[in-house]
Amino acid sequence: MIDDEKSLHPFLQSFSSINKKKVLVHGGGKIATSIGDKLNIQSKYIDGRRITDDDAIDLVTMVYGGLINKKIVAMLQSLKCNAIGICGADANSIEAVKRPVKTIDYGWVGDIEPGKIDTNIWQVFIDNGLVPVVASLTHDREGHILNTNADTIASCLAVALSSLYEVHLVFCFEKDGVLTDVNDAKSVIAELNNDVYQSLKKEKKLFAGILPKIDNALDAIKKGVRDVVIGNSENLTGLVNNKSGTKII
Amino acid sequence: MIDDEKSLHPFLQSFSSINKKKVLVHGGGKIATSIGDKLNIQSKYIDGRRITDDDAIDLVTMVYGGLINKKIVAMLQSLKCNAIGICGADANSIEAVKRPVKTIDYGWVGDIEPGKIDTNIWQVFIDNGLVPVVASLTHDREGHILNTNADTIASCLAVALSSLYEVHLVFCFEKDGVLTDVNDAKSVIAELNNDVYQSLKKEKKLFAGILPKIDNALDAIKKGVRDVVIGNSENLTGLVNNKSGTKII
Repeated sequence: MIDDEKSLHPFLQSFSSINKKKVLVHGGGKIATSIGDKLNIQSKYIDGRRITDDDAIDLVTMVYGGLINKKIVAMLQSLKCNAIGICGADANSIEAVKRPVKTIDYGWVGDIEPGKIDTNIWQVFIDNGLVPVVASLTHDREGHILNTNADTIASCLAVALSSLYEVHLVFCFEKDGVLTDVNDAKSVIAELNNDVYQSLKKEKKLFAGILPKIDNALDAIKKGVRDVVIGNSENLTGLVNNKSGTKII
Repeated sequence: MIDDEKSLHPFLQSFSSINKKKVLVHGGGKIATSIGDKLNIQSKYIDGRRITDDDAIDLVTMVYGGLINKKIVAMLQSLKCNAIGICGADANSIEAVKRPVKTIDYGWVGDIEPGKIDTNIWQVFIDNGLVPVVASLTHDREGHILNTNADTIASCLAVALSSLYEVHLVFCFEKDGVLTDVNDAKSVIAELNNDVYQSLKKEKKLFAGILPKIDNALDAIKKGVRDVVIGNSENLTGLVNNKSGTKII
């Protein structure tokens, strides 16, 4: 949705009309890949995760933290939503640890350790009426920006903020929810718990791309997030009102 | 200085050791030009000001607001300085007006109108111990990022913050101060007032690049900024302590 201003704008309209304290977390992979191609920075992936070398971290810092983040902020500001665009380095809002090299060197990729998100600064933003728009970048407090998956940031942040607020976590993507048949857009599961998830996974009924989202969602519920729903970014209002998508329980 | 990490790092060390509430404003023209060349976005200038078409505003949004801003923030965080990287769209911190087309169409360039900077949000940042690092971008509140000269932002912001704080404004560049002879690096004027400035300008003793800096500096003093100094980024501590540079009076 982020790749196309025609779908981004109505999404941000729905987002700005949510009459609650709120945070938006975004990535922006396809735009980064296309600008990287022009700059002759090849995007490398292992198991769907970008290998982030020196050039790649500069690329995603520019694209996620600059181009996409500020475009979203300016659009939200025009919709009277007082957005502030940040990444995890800003105000030390999301500290992470560079992923240790085992068999694969992911490069400048950051993992968030439990309990390491300082909620004070989030409270300053949120309680002053600001709407944080978070690019999926963190930092190591040693001067390096790190690339961190947007769904993971959303999940960890939702868990951390659950100590202060009743948090509803919404994962948006291009499908209507978790599908039991990837070829049938209407096969949305209304509610999914861990047992059903494990058996669907065993039967290989779920497509690979959805698995990390569900893992993040289940983890968030387990750690105190009130509600988690996965669904279509075209129907954000329905997702927020529990009228569409897959509810994780 | 921003173009070269070898000089950026000691500058940020000096900056982080200033034991006062502080704000850093930066541009980043040369890096934008070099990345623009690779992306086939030609940089066009009239009278030293970039003509900012659709491609160019995306370019500077990426480079100023993303790459350079987040790199500075991550470095400052490693120096225990709690930086937060923003542009004028973030938290509606600097509203501007797209420059009207008279003889020249500057494109997506923003001018800041007097009294239009909302100091409340700056106070929230500063009084919560955050150090704003401001990329030289503003917005029009209609969804567009605008390119605004970094010296102008620094000056307007210093004026606005003078209603809340005693503001010392430091303009950093690659020379030791205002020179009466551009070929003699030691011909620094210790103190410059408007009368002396006007006569030096008439005698064409000043090089063109320094004129907007002095204009911004005199304007800031006139509008309530306590101190303004212009000097070398390599000697920030000296500039802050009134031991080097040109003091504008």
